[in-house]
Amino acid sequence: MRNDAAHAPGMPVVAVVGDGQLARMMQTEAIELGASVRLLAGADDASAAQVCADVALGDYRDLADLRAVAAGADAVTFDHEHVPNEHLDALIADGVNVQPRPHALIHAQDKLVQRTRLSELGVPVPDFAAVDSVADALSFFERVDGHVCLKARRGGYDGKGVWFPDTAEELADLVEDLLGRGVPLMAERKIAFERELSLLVARRPSGEVRAWPVTESVQAGGVCVEAVAPAPSVSSEEADYLLSLAAAVATDLDVTGVLAVEMFAYRDDAGHAAFAVNELAMRPHNTGHWTQDGSVTSQFEQHLRAVLDLPLGDTAPTAAVTVMANTLGAPEQPDLGVYERCRQVWQRYPQAKIHLYGKTYRAGRKLGHVNLSGDDPERTRVAARRAADFLVTGVWPDGWTDSSTKEQA
Amino acid sequence: MRNDAAHAPGMPVVAVVGDGQLARMMQTEAIELGASVRLLAGADDASAAQVCADVALGDYRDLADLRAVAAGADAVTFDHEHVPNEHLDALIADGVNVQPRPHALIHAQDKLVQRTRLSELGVPVPDFAAVDSVADALSFFERVDGHVCLKARRGGYDGKGVWFPDTAEELADLVEDLLGRGVPLMAERKIAFERELSLLVARRPSGEVRAWPVTESVQAGGVCVEAVAPAPSVSSEEADYLLSLAAAVATDLDVTGVLAVEMFAYRDDAGHAAFAVNELAMRPHNTGHWTQDGSVTSQFEQHLRAVLDLPLGDTAPTAAVTVMANTLGAPEQPDLGVYERCRQVWQRYPQAKIHLYGKTYRAGRKLGHVNLSGDDPERTRVAARRAADFLVTGVWPDGWTDSSTKEQA
Repeated sequence: MRNDAAHAPGMPVVAVVGDGQLARMMQTEAIELGASVRLLAGADDASAAQVCADVALGDYRDLADLRAVAAGADAVTFDHEHVPNEHLDALIADGVNVQPRPHALIHAQDKLVQRTRLSELGVPVPDFAAVDSVADALSFFERVDGHVCLKARRGGYDGKGVWFPDTAEELADLVEDLLGRGVPLMAERKIAFERELSLLVARRPSGEVRAWPVTESVQAGGVCVEAVAPAPSVSSEEADYLLSLAAAVATDLDVTGVLAVEMFAYRDDAGHAAFAVNELAMRPHNTGHWTQDGSVTSQFEQHLRAVLDLPLGDTAPTAAVTVMANTLGAPEQPDLGVYERCRQVWQRYPQAKIHLYGKTYRAGRKLGHVNLSGDDPERTRVAARRAADFLVTGVWPDGWTDSSTKEQA
Repeated sequence: MRNDAAHAPGMPVVAVVGDGQLARMMQTEAIELGASVRLLAGADDASAAQVCADVALGDYRDLADLRAVAAGADAVTFDHEHVPNEHLDALIADGVNVQPRPHALIHAQDKLVQRTRLSELGVPVPDFAAVDSVADALSFFERVDGHVCLKARRGGYDGKGVWFPDTAEELADLVEDLLGRGVPLMAERKIAFERELSLLVARRPSGEVRAWPVTESVQAGGVCVEAVAPAPSVSSEEADYLLSLAAAVATDLDVTGVLAVEMFAYRDDAGHAAFAVNELAMRPHNTGHWTQDGSVTSQFEQHLRAVLDLPLGDTAPTAAVTVMANTLGAPEQPDLGVYERCRQVWQRYPQAKIHLYGKTYRAGRKLGHVNLSGDDPERTRVAARRAADFLVTGVWPDGWTDSSTKEQA
């Protein structure tokens, strides 16, 4: 059932496949642009389905469902990388404008294809190898002196599909088990990184590329917990190098829309600063949420403009520093209601920008994030962290009590 | 038909009466807050109805329709002041949390009530009088030496319901005609203003008030065409005075949500700078659209927080100057499609933030606005004006042609 009334005459319609917070935040920007989202959602109360006026319920693995949502749309895009590429090829054969396209997406879907291509392009990646047998794995284990990280080639995210075996035996057992269950594997050298950086760029089909300032991210258990932009630890020479690298990746892989290049920053054997690609994501990315409140153009607006092949927006920061802190479900949901938790956060930090995804509480789940801009990276980080944590714990670890006191970051 | 799936469990539901661009832009902010809008709309393709997931079709003059949309909402608010107050009283008697309340709203609905109350409070207003007869009008005409402005007490907006008779005869004819048609009237001294200012504040039921920087607005034919913030022509002493005046008005009238106090800035008979209230609006206001891209907290987010009695957000500007230029339908719709017009605007001004309301083209209609931030008020104003005009005319008056040239404001 299609709601034609949701689409203003003459304005572009973007079909978005996926119903999570990334699609939800695309709708926010689509509203202001006068463009409109037609959503393919798995449930009518999913995060993005709650906020869109034209929602088709269906399965992104079902070609008929994809065709139904794509019909008549000016572009089809995604909030995840899991749509089968053969379906995307079928849509393209129908004449649908799919952005990004499968020949680009494959590099965000299959880690071995990605590593192979990036190293061909001269982009630094950790030493890696295909693992089609236990022998492959053990040979790589030798080569990297046991510093091995085993990865599922496909389907991993937020730390899932990644293993760090300590011994050759552990590795052999893992590989035997996983290959036996049909999981295609690769291995790579485990990088003892000092910090993680995210390079956020957008590219449109006709070639224009724009980059946001380099973002530093903090991960815990494979999940992004914080992002700080511009990255305080990166020199302007390093930033120029990294952003030109990301632009080259976007162009060489023919990425369209937002591309996030997650990088490890580490010391090489000689002790020099070095960088290697960790992951690619071809959609708005958690490490880019700060752009909603800290940049002239947010990653969600930019993604929509990019997939519609419209000129890209200014990516200048609007504050000295902006910190994004994720709001991840705590082990126990607090008794204090979410509405009362928001109240206390705003009472303490009038400058905190709370973004909530409309999701039910679950331990570890990404329920929202807080953006906070300020002048000092560390003070701003502490404030954003406290605010984001209070939203899920209902506890101020420093003992702050609700009063009229406001704090500036 | 109510869409319960649109409302995240535990988060506030705001019933918004009205389906125009103000309600549409409340939905933008509600999405990010995790709150949700239940809309009372006149048509399913109205500006706000296009973008909300829970839309009740109905009439804001019908108590049953109002009751249906209000049921279970945490607050009921408006994108216009035209809901009959007796219906709001009935909702309040039902236990509904109506914000702002009728005893405040009356001052935005009835100009004579407003003028009387403001002058009692010592807030400067133009000299005024009730007009219940031709004799009243002629007596006032004498008093102000013919500098008279006749106003319908109710229902006027955007220059409608305001007349400027040049002679006593013209005034007498107008008054006789209008009173004969049952239009309640008042008269006031016509102010030869030098510029117009807008004082934007928000207040919540428990009393907190926050103000944005003073905004200078430019009107043409009674319709706002531009707003510049912070107002370049206002000294910091004047700003302090004006904002404390607006805060006092909000408090004394018990306004909740956003209040816009439109002011005339003029020279008194002695040639000194003077100010007088022109209009009050108790909702987000056209002169506050710049806050979407030029302030830490937008007027739409603030309005939602205020009507829910949540702590108000930081109202600091995020740029040296932000200009809002309205996109008003030109006499003829251009052949160039709206999508292509956006393309050229962004090609020329990557920093332009385009907001479109999903409305069909009509001469003089508010179709959208452009926000543009920069360092220099006049350069920024020129750029925003050109961008907003091009969106409706498809013509660059300075002969710019589409090329790769980008301009900074």
